[in-house]
Amino acid sequence: MTPDELETTLRDIGTERYHNRHPFHRMLHGGECSRGQVQAWALNRYYYQAQIPVKDATLLARLPTADLRREWRRRLVDHDGDAPGTGGISRWLKLVESVGLDAAYAESTRGILPATRFAVDAYIAFVRDRSLLEAIASSLTEMFAPKIIGERVAGMLAHYDWITRDALAYFTPRLTQAPQDVAFALGYVREHARTQTEQEAVLAALRFKCDVLWAQLDALHHAYVTPGLIPPGAFVPR
Amino acid sequence: MTPDELETTLRDIGTERYHNRHPFHRMLHGGECSRGQVQAWALNRYYYQAQIPVKDATLLARLPTADLRREWRRRLVDHDGDAPGTGGISRWLKLVESVGLDAAYAESTRGILPATRFAVDAYIAFVRDRSLLEAIASSLTEMFAPKIIGERVAGMLAHYDWITRDALAYFTPRLTQAPQDVAFALGYVREHARTQTEQEAVLAALRFKCDVLWAQLDALHHAYVTPGLIPPGAFVPR
Repeated sequence: MTPDELETTLRDIGTERYHNRHPFHRMLHGGECSRGQVQAWALNRYYYQAQIPVKDATLLARLPTADLRREWRRRLVDHDGDAPGTGGISRWLKLVESVGLDAAYAESTRGILPATRFAVDAYIAFVRDRSLLEAIASSLTEMFAPKIIGERVAGMLAHYDWITRDALAYFTPRLTQAPQDVAFALGYVREHARTQTEQEAVLAALRFKCDVLWAQLDALHHAYVTPGLIPPGAFVPR
Repeated sequence: MTPDELETTLRDIGTERYHNRHPFHRMLHGGECSRGQVQAWALNRYYYQAQIPVKDATLLARLPTADLRREWRRRLVDHDGDAPGTGGISRWLKLVESVGLDAAYAESTRGILPATRFAVDAYIAFVRDRSLLEAIASSLTEMFAPKIIGERVAGMLAHYDWITRDALAYFTPRLTQAPQDVAFALGYVREHARTQTEQEAVLAALRFKCDVLWAQLDALHHAYVTPGLIPPGAFVPR
């Protein structure tokens, strides 16, 4: 495949497998979630958010040049911030609080679904253990993020009167950060995935990452929507 | 806690959290599963079975004495056998075939649920990364295995006329192997978990392992029972 054909095939994977197609997201954005279901989503997704800098540091540690590391370091700043109370994780905690949960409870990760932990940890292990090319390619779900963020913010503000624009402050910077991240990662993948084996590995990495996101929504949906079977020890909405 | 109190608390965790309480197992054993649902169970569970010797070798590599390693090595023999076509994995493949799937398809792990892979891989990572005491304690779900195996074999033979005693040959040796494994692991845990911190770590390890088993059934139940939402790329029963 040429770089353009590879990019088209990557985008096709998003069309088929990105988690904007999951019924839980359709519910969440369409105003069909109860407050407890939104709490469960914010709580579980917090674990994913909190581990993203761990994932990025794991990847950064494998980059061979200062140029590459500096580029990837921006992601650490985006999520961890420059001072206490800044950055993506901190903004996600504000969302957690605004839907009525304690930030300390979310930070403890006590109530999350085991399946959330397994999926997120699988992402970190993938980035640690696979080739650098695959690790970078697995970040490319960000290609599809701006669309879902737009739907999410508009849908949640329209449908839940207990959610404010302020509570969704996490998402606004992502609309500019994600395309910047993608520009680098997609450029890297287009340049370095030349052989058929490399290109197939890149496509599999993106499918894997879509699975990581999809499995988190499957677990939420099973526990809190249908059939609503909460695993022993996990968060129970009041 | 005394060793006896610790053992009682471990058994209480099983009563609360072992996967015999999951609705999927009640369906499976009660004859309420379709052939496609039994196929999905056998296929996904194959990945767990196939990774058990990887888990045991990971643990064996951390054992400090020949005595301990020889004891744990028995588990490798039980699962991998002494010759091609023997051992637990091979018997599980016969079950896979007897419910109408290709052994090669199961071995490829192509159709398994991503959540199955994430949960099983989390188990291996736990055994690699946690203390030896926690790694050994995580095997103690075997304390609860004979009961579920008894229910399973009787229930499946009674309810599914397309399942033979021969197809369930995997389970017969487990009825003697599991108690032997438990005798060693429980003895080790009783002896080495002395401080409160160690005892809490042991209890958490068993809870973790129950989560690993429960999450696999949650994923099966969500994909193939209720709501029956099969993730992109996973096995679709005909």
